[in-house]
Amino acid sequence: MRMLSVIGIGAGDPDQVTVQAIKAMRRVDVFFVIGKGADKRELVEVRAAILAEHVDRPYRIVEIADPPRDRAPADYQGVVEDWHERRSALLEEAFSQVDGVGGILVWGDPALYDSTLRMIERVLARGAVRFDYEVIPGVTSVQALAARHRMVLHRIGEPVHITTGRRLREDGLTGSAVVMLDGDCSFTQVPGDDIHIWWGAYLGMLDETLIEGPLREVEQRIVTSRDRLRAEKGWIMDIYLLRRG
Amino acid sequence: MRMLSVIGIGAGDPDQVTVQAIKAMRRVDVFFVIGKGADKRELVEVRAAILAEHVDRPYRIVEIADPPRDRAPADYQGVVEDWHERRSALLEEAFSQVDGVGGILVWGDPALYDSTLRMIERVLARGAVRFDYEVIPGVTSVQALAARHRMVLHRIGEPVHITTGRRLREDGLTGSAVVMLDGDCSFTQVPGDDIHIWWGAYLGMLDETLIEGPLREVEQRIVTSRDRLRAEKGWIMDIYLLRRG
Ligand SMILES: C[S@@+](CC[C@H](N)C(=O)[O-])C[C@H]1O[C@@H](n2cnc3c(N)ncnc32)[C@H](O)[C@@H]1O
Ligand SMILES: C[S@@+](CC[C@H](N)C(=O)[O-])C[C@H]1O[C@@H](n2cnc3c(N)ncnc32)[C@H](O)[C@@H]1O
Repeated sequence: MRMLSVIGIGAGDPDQVTVQAIKAMRRVDVFFVIGKGADKRELVEVRAAILAEHVDRPYRIVEIADPPRDRAPADYQGVVEDWHERRSALLEEAFSQVDGVGGILVWGDPALYDSTLRMIERVLARGAVRFDYEVIPGVTSVQALAARHRMVLHRIGEPVHITTGRRLREDGLTGSAVVMLDGDCSFTQVPGDDIHIWWGAYLGMLDETLIEGPLREVEQRIVTSRDRLRAEKGWIMDIYLLRRG
Repeated sequence: MRMLSVIGIGAGDPDQVTVQAIKAMRRVDVFFVIGKGADKRELVEVRAAILAEHVDRPYRIVEIADPPRDRAPADYQGVVEDWHERRSALLEEAFSQVDGVGGILVWGDPALYDSTLRMIERVLARGAVRFDYEVIPGVTSVQALAARHRMVLHRIGEPVHITTGRRLREDGLTGSAVVMLDGDCSFTQVPGDDIHIWWGAYLGMLDETLIEGPLREVEQRIVTSRDRLRAEKGWIMDIYLLRRG
């Protein structure tokens, strides 16, 4: 492989892809798809829909199975580190078999809670394969959430804070925060009667669900909807904005 | 006006526009353009290039002059408040003269340091005109910066913090921060020898300039380049990521 294109594709709606991403896809000979397991087939389908609609030259798809991962380890950083190393070894092998331009489609934007760029740096650091790479930015799920609620992410002149469920539980909430990667409805553990929530699941997709209101009034409704949706579909992706005051 | 579409167009490269944004533009009868003054003509040109390339049905463009604004006031929130009110009055008048679908093209994403959505809420709150509105998310300059430096915005498991030059000076730096809206090279005022900077100006545009390195080693080079570029072009837009450790 001479060149690898890491392409952000938006966070759910296939129309969230950019013209720049489409042009990059049209140069790719082989797309590497890192498997997410059967229950998230829909995520793979969004990628397939984008390729089918916008790319008419021939390309190959190489699926790379994700190594298993402990989702609630005691030694979080250590386990993530080890998992990335195993993933990199699989990528290295796949990359070394390609002659031409490789492509990886990344959900949302590659700079936000995605491990692709770190894996690529790791593969290059191992030194066994050589290639250049470029990154094409994409619309994030943060932007998708804000757009559907027609919200600005911050108060006038204030910072934007984007965090994970785990860190919200550890750090608490001051001002506003966008929370991602929260499997535990961590908003229920944030104390205070002056918090508003803007929540969204499956943004841009068929089952998109939005709930908004004073946190203490709507939190139970979100927990219930979330459980039901996840049970029906087998998986869920959700994100929310919290604001105090 | 029955419907208003607030459309994020990406942060500089006309190809950063999404398919969703293009489809929304194709439904618009009148685009409202909020003037930025002659020296930022290039920003207007990016919008014009996007419209010329992707929209082939007829549309009108209505320019709305920006009211003047004190950029370094003592009472920051009060002055911004007053400026928004005057802007809203101008928008209200423009909106009331349109029959059909209105559109506003927003630089980057409408949820990030942009006042359009707040102005629209204000116009609606005044009660003199009625319309529905939708928001189309866009690629932000934060994503554009990260992509050009092929960076992730955070360390593994850590939050993303996006702030302004003003707030960086007031709050200092812990961990990582993306800094926008900084006319004062505030990075020179952050103490410490363990900070790295990834800086970008005019991202996605012809004069794009990138500088990266240990902050104390490269800060003077950034200040000098920034002064020269701003002098040559009459304006500058820059953004950077700082990281400690
Ligand atoms: C591994 S991160 C990837 C984020 C992605 N790189 C981005 O730019 O949005 C996955 C998290 O993103 C959020 N997310 C991504 N797509 C989403 C969608 N369509 N609806 C709701 N949340 C979404 C959820 O919080 C999920 O836990
Ligand atoms: C008023 S804010 C608008 C931000 C926009 N809504 C977004 O999503 O990026 C303007 C600031 O964005 C950053 N910015 C926007 N476009 C940029 C570009 N092409 N290159 C560098 N910085 C940019 C600069 O920090 C600038 O001061």
